[in-house]
Amino acid sequence: MTNLPNAAICLIGDELLSGRTRDINTRTIAKFLAPYGIPVREVRIVPDEQARIVEAVNALRAAYTYVFTTGGIGPTHDDITADAIAAAFGVSIGEHPEALKLLAERYAQMDTEFTPARRRMARVPDGASLIDNPVSGAPGFQTGNVFTLAGVPQIVEGMLGDIGHRLQSGQVVHSVTVRGADLREGDLAEALATLSDQFDGVSIGSYPWFRTVNDHGVALIARGADQMVLAKVSEALANLVRAQGVEPETLDGES
Amino acid sequence: MTNLPNAAICLIGDELLSGRTRDINTRTIAKFLAPYGIPVREVRIVPDEQARIVEAVNALRAAYTYVFTTGGIGPTHDDITADAIAAAFGVSIGEHPEALKLLAERYAQMDTEFTPARRRMARVPDGASLIDNPVSGAPGFQTGNVFTLAGVPQIVEGMLGDIGHRLQSGQVVHSVTVRGADLREGDLAEALATLSDQFDGVSIGSYPWFRTVNDHGVALIARGADQMVLAKVSEALANLVRAQGVEPETLDGES
Repeated sequence: MTNLPNAAICLIGDELLSGRTRDINTRTIAKFLAPYGIPVREVRIVPDEQARIVEAVNALRAAYTYVFTTGGIGPTHDDITADAIAAAFGVSIGEHPEALKLLAERYAQMDTEFTPARRRMARVPDGASLIDNPVSGAPGFQTGNVFTLAGVPQIVEGMLGDIGHRLQSGQVVHSVTVRGADLREGDLAEALATLSDQFDGVSIGSYPWFRTVNDHGVALIARGADQMVLAKVSEALANLVRAQGVEPETLDGES
Repeated sequence: MTNLPNAAICLIGDELLSGRTRDINTRTIAKFLAPYGIPVREVRIVPDEQARIVEAVNALRAAYTYVFTTGGIGPTHDDITADAIAAAFGVSIGEHPEALKLLAERYAQMDTEFTPARRRMARVPDGASLIDNPVSGAPGFQTGNVFTLAGVPQIVEGMLGDIGHRLQSGQVVHSVTVRGADLREGDLAEALATLSDQFDGVSIGSYPWFRTVNDHGVALIARGADQMVLAKVSEALANLVRAQGVEPETLDGES
């Protein structure tokens, strides 16, 4: 298992920590990585402060196969991610000729002044390769095993299109979800623990939902690489729900 | 500044890492803490694995005044947070008499069997105090500077009601948001950097939004403790937007 690739995400931005902005990039990146068999194993959210970004990126890049950072690569004074990544890797930072050309052409096309602030977006750590940004032009970049992406969700999605070919695939994990409306976790806990011990290589999670008094229940999710085994687990989970007098709802999916 | 209280959040759950569940508890906790003047300075999301929870909780509780964990305190086999917190603090874990009484009474009232699995929810680390759960009964708990809450958002909200009186207040940070529709960050970057240097004790962030071709712009957010200074910054930011030929929209708020 130790040789299978995995990933961590480092979300950068005061606005996420203050609760002003609700993160959606974790979901986007996790769903993107699932078909490659690369599970996200940790997420950290850190403020727009160089020392904190450096600390998190260095901890994560040492512990995981791939690290994705989001946020802080725009043209304003609080966009410090490129400098922080260079500091984390202990390399210099400078204007990337290809990025500069790309940005200059884009602003010329838009008949918009290519200001010194906009020019900052061409700065990447030495040795980094660019990540194409089909949405707004200014590229992301890859430094070693760290992919530095924008913060705006639509741009993150766009940049992911230039990342798949750089990844080493692992073992795709499939999942089945069996939902039991009106049930509570305690109704199923004993039988579930027994079932969980019976199947190797499958992890079973229990997730209660509670929206209103009339809309609550338990979702049982089994994850594993072997779809034959997973099908058996799915049936066993469905029977467990049926034993409580509830007709289960079963969904298949990746991740 | 170093003596002012701050906080970190540790979200526990495979379902958050897989992208199946989108976190909302960070926002809830950050918004709850803002009026106490306690900023959230870091968030980590870790899987349902004891070693990973212990590692994160120990790192965070050493670095921040308060730590909030969410998730993993239900009755099923994958609910391992209480054990992990006990391990992190190096203390034993056992049934808390008050929690046991509370749960026994609740299930008796509901005419529901108080199974061994449900009884697991009375287990808390030695020396922990309980956190009231007005939503579903099973309590959270406080161990030193670590508050262990449920994962279900409605229960988190309920539990926060029993936490305010335990907190030492800091300096309330206020914010103003000035939005400029149709602008891009590059239009404002130079003037913004100059402005940012002019005001001590105020941090200014620039956050582009891009929903559609017809709905994009830049939100400028200034944060600081002094509302008089903040009012000046707000006016300066509004003028900066007006200088681009756009009428600014200004919003006040906490955090």
